[in-house]
Amino acid sequence: MANDPLVVGVDFGTLSGRAVVVRVSDGAELGTAVHEYRHGVLDRTTPGGRALPPEWALQVPQDYVDVLRNAIPAAIADAGVDAADVIGVGTDFTACTMVPVNAGGTPLCELPEFADHPHAFVKLWKHHAAQGQADRINRLAQERGESWLPRYGGLISSEWEFAKGLQILEEAPDVYAAIDHWVEAADWIVWQLTGTYVRNACTAGYKGIYQDGGYPSEEFLAALNPGFADFVSTKLEHPLGQLGDRAGGLSAEAAAWTGLTEGIAVSVGNVDAHVTAPAAQAVEPGQMVAIMGTSTCHVMNGDHLAEVPGMCGVVEGGIVPGLWGYEAGQSGVGDIFGWFVQHQVPASYHETARERGISTHELLTELAAEQKIGQHGLVALDWHSGNRSVLVDHELSGVVVGQTLATRAEDTYRALLEATAFGTRVIVDTFTDAGVPVTELVIAGGLLRNKLLMQIYADVTNLPLSVIGSEQGPALGSALHAAVAAGAYPDIRAAALAMGSLLKDVYRPIEANVQAYERLFTEYQELHDYFGRGANEVMHRLKAGRREALGEES
Amino acid sequence: MANDPLVVGVDFGTLSGRAVVVRVSDGAELGTAVHEYRHGVLDRTTPGGRALPPEWALQVPQDYVDVLRNAIPAAIADAGVDAADVIGVGTDFTACTMVPVNAGGTPLCELPEFADHPHAFVKLWKHHAAQGQADRINRLAQERGESWLPRYGGLISSEWEFAKGLQILEEAPDVYAAIDHWVEAADWIVWQLTGTYVRNACTAGYKGIYQDGGYPSEEFLAALNPGFADFVSTKLEHPLGQLGDRAGGLSAEAAAWTGLTEGIAVSVGNVDAHVTAPAAQAVEPGQMVAIMGTSTCHVMNGDHLAEVPGMCGVVEGGIVPGLWGYEAGQSGVGDIFGWFVQHQVPASYHETARERGISTHELLTELAAEQKIGQHGLVALDWHSGNRSVLVDHELSGVVVGQTLATRAEDTYRALLEATAFGTRVIVDTFTDAGVPVTELVIAGGLLRNKLLMQIYADVTNLPLSVIGSEQGPALGSALHAAVAAGAYPDIRAAALAMGSLLKDVYRPIEANVQAYERLFTEYQELHDYFGRGANEVMHRLKAGRREALGEES
Repeated sequence: MANDPLVVGVDFGTLSGRAVVVRVSDGAELGTAVHEYRHGVLDRTTPGGRALPPEWALQVPQDYVDVLRNAIPAAIADAGVDAADVIGVGTDFTACTMVPVNAGGTPLCELPEFADHPHAFVKLWKHHAAQGQADRINRLAQERGESWLPRYGGLISSEWEFAKGLQILEEAPDVYAAIDHWVEAADWIVWQLTGTYVRNACTAGYKGIYQDGGYPSEEFLAALNPGFADFVSTKLEHPLGQLGDRAGGLSAEAAAWTGLTEGIAVSVGNVDAHVTAPAAQAVEPGQMVAIMGTSTCHVMNGDHLAEVPGMCGVVEGGIVPGLWGYEAGQSGVGDIFGWFVQHQVPASYHETARERGISTHELLTELAAEQKIGQHGLVALDWHSGNRSVLVDHELSGVVVGQTLATRAEDTYRALLEATAFGTRVIVDTFTDAGVPVTELVIAGGLLRNKLLMQIYADVTNLPLSVIGSEQGPALGSALHAAVAAGAYPDIRAAALAMGSLLKDVYRPIEANVQAYERLFTEYQELHDYFGRGANEVMHRLKAGRREALGEES
Repeated sequence: MANDPLVVGVDFGTLSGRAVVVRVSDGAELGTAVHEYRHGVLDRTTPGGRALPPEWALQVPQDYVDVLRNAIPAAIADAGVDAADVIGVGTDFTACTMVPVNAGGTPLCELPEFADHPHAFVKLWKHHAAQGQADRINRLAQERGESWLPRYGGLISSEWEFAKGLQILEEAPDVYAAIDHWVEAADWIVWQLTGTYVRNACTAGYKGIYQDGGYPSEEFLAALNPGFADFVSTKLEHPLGQLGDRAGGLSAEAAAWTGLTEGIAVSVGNVDAHVTAPAAQAVEPGQMVAIMGTSTCHVMNGDHLAEVPGMCGVVEGGIVPGLWGYEAGQSGVGDIFGWFVQHQVPASYHETARERGISTHELLTELAAEQKIGQHGLVALDWHSGNRSVLVDHELSGVVVGQTLATRAEDTYRALLEATAFGTRVIVDTFTDAGVPVTELVIAGGLLRNKLLMQIYADVTNLPLSVIGSEQGPALGSALHAAVAAGAYPDIRAAALAMGSLLKDVYRPIEANVQAYERLFTEYQELHDYFGRGANEVMHRLKAGRREALGEES
């Protein structure tokens, strides 16, 4: 009897990559392994020690290849299966994370002429230094009434392909000139696996302003900067692959790295958030999937096209064929909590946590959970990493209001948890108000383990919370796409039914909490609009002042 | 040859009392000693463990007597002098710090029937739980057009005698009924030294609403609460002593505690800030003395009566005879820095400081000093302990705007230093705008040791900073008053010339910094008015919500 066919999904996150080995027949996860990026996120210096300005965030491409070399064989070993039973590999990636490469796909940072040049590295999704470029793109698009603008909530993010590309042109024209392809890391890794560059339709639509069969016009690009006129034709345009399609067969080199069989199916690249929706069986309109980790991505299908202010994008078939895929996001969630624990929590908490054998996050959560709503007397804005939806403004920053000499770490920690829930609430309300009602929140990602946080989200949004059944949603979603690419299922929806998993209504809103949070949310909303919608542009001025003090252009 | 005559000054601070032995002829400080209050500040529980609501701050009166017993003999020993040469004792105290006593001067917390009753303890100046009472006093006084209201900047503080007294009546009528005298701690300690209760003119004027020879009327008090009608006549009214007068002779009991000679002069009680002005030879109009410690008190003489919005008070002869003494204040300064270091600084800073043999404050100051103005990208409001001048609102709270994932402890620390400087700037501007121009800042208090902080104050206010020549300004000022009480000088101004000391223009504004801070101050001012002047009452609502969650009345 032949063994059950298997697939491997690999999820490339912000700090590490995770491989999971999955049974095609039922989605059972048989083994998994994580490999951390050696260089992590470069936000202070390049590997060679060159100082980076504020808001920069780079990565090193070989760190991604190391995930293939290490995590895939380790996951196979962990599963105790025969690598020969693997019939396909699928991947997903953070987005918009961009690699500048030459015609052969070699990242420019690996070329001697650009050694240690900051602009030659990968620009990670949370590289926020192209806000000036994004502002100009938005102003010009609005003036010209570009038809694609409303598909992105009226605002193109500084995180995306055009703003980041324009930044290179304007700050490092030599690097820009050497770019033959401006490639999503999601596609670059598939290129490493197959030897073929296939541009995936998901990021092309969500991050690359590809709408209704085309990109922004040369005329538009020339008006931004004459040197940018041929950006699309010389660096971006490339044949697209549809989600679940086979990008190619596993190359001999990649087979050697991974221990898998040469020639097996490799699916078209995809985005972590978008692969998670089918993994959570959440592909129906009204089911908003929130993938909560370092940041939060929200994806949801809708049965019609609507313009949602401040959404990241809407792409036809962007998640599953036949529906409009909506995306929104919060730039900072888990990383705000992590920053807080690292930089604002006194030693005594860390010591207590260590003594009790729990993490400081767990200790703070425990202490915060003892509080009644409003007891800390605080309200915070969760913009420490800027605001993606619905303000699309990375010049915004964090605020905590209400601290007194009685404020303790658990108070501020809870206020930050709540602030991210309020941020999600703003997104949910904006979708619903725009005619794309949200009826259920489906949570995936590492933060779902925090039960206090989950209950806060249910109470703040007044929605039932369902939870993905898998501990590794994106990797499972990638495996599911691999199964489709390998021909085991006719399409993603069919694979989702067989291989995905969802625990329904795990957290339900508690009426008294809903009411208490309604009051605090009103405070959040007022501060949100005051600081975020132009009444007081202090955050913009503070960031400009910071850049000026550091000797950069504001 | 007889020895030089000496005096002893004792400064009762928030956490400890300090005695200093001073030579009458020239103000030379010969010896000093500090004694910490055993119970410190009670802001969480009573000594017996009863939980205190937020905003409470109590003390234990016997801790003050322990200062007399310990610090005075220790200072004499430190000076290596003969206690018999001491011709007078002077004291100063935090204010408005109130002791509820019976007819014999025994604090009610020492009576068995009120053992461990929160309302029977000393209400420390920073007890802020009588804001509701203060609000009613202010509303009513405004409605009735009470003539004394403008003397207090239009607002009576929750810290003062009437609000704190009314709180006891309304929350603990049994304790209230047992009060025979509602005594300033400044006067209670003189009572312990002399056996005689003399009410000092300074606190009566600044904290007791004593103006133009009288207190608020019975009619006014009855309108606040019928039970409060006879508050003045039954608990407050008492013969006044003028500053520098002899309150009495040292009692036999106090002579035994201190080792000093029975019968020597004890000067009338006084307030820490007010005694510091002559100690710093800063008694001329335009010289604003800022005594910077846990909080900051500002005192300044003026040659005419003016109404300064949000000042704490103006009292004729309140600092020196013949001039109008103005007072203003910031409720939280050093205690904000202290809270920050204790509760928001990670272990690595404390470790580095320890390794280098410096304090964490010094390390953070060093790191902050390396920054250019605006480099941290932050602006904070220094209201963690409420706002005394010019908003007189203890329902306000702290704010930090602009934090990002790149924000480190030294960034926020510097922003808090700056916020307190901006707070001083608002006070300076308000005085100047009201026709009482400030031409020089004279700094006293422990924070003058922080050179970065001093330069920031000079740059933010665009004023030259002079610095008191003594390390123990208030204690020296008290000694100076003792010398006057003992008849060694005809009045305080004469004693100031002989015994005070001042280093002129130690810090001068740096023009480039002045301009850079002007921009940041504009941000501060906009947030100050937004959160502090009614545009968004979120801080009031957050504090009310906190009380509600904790099960108290809002």
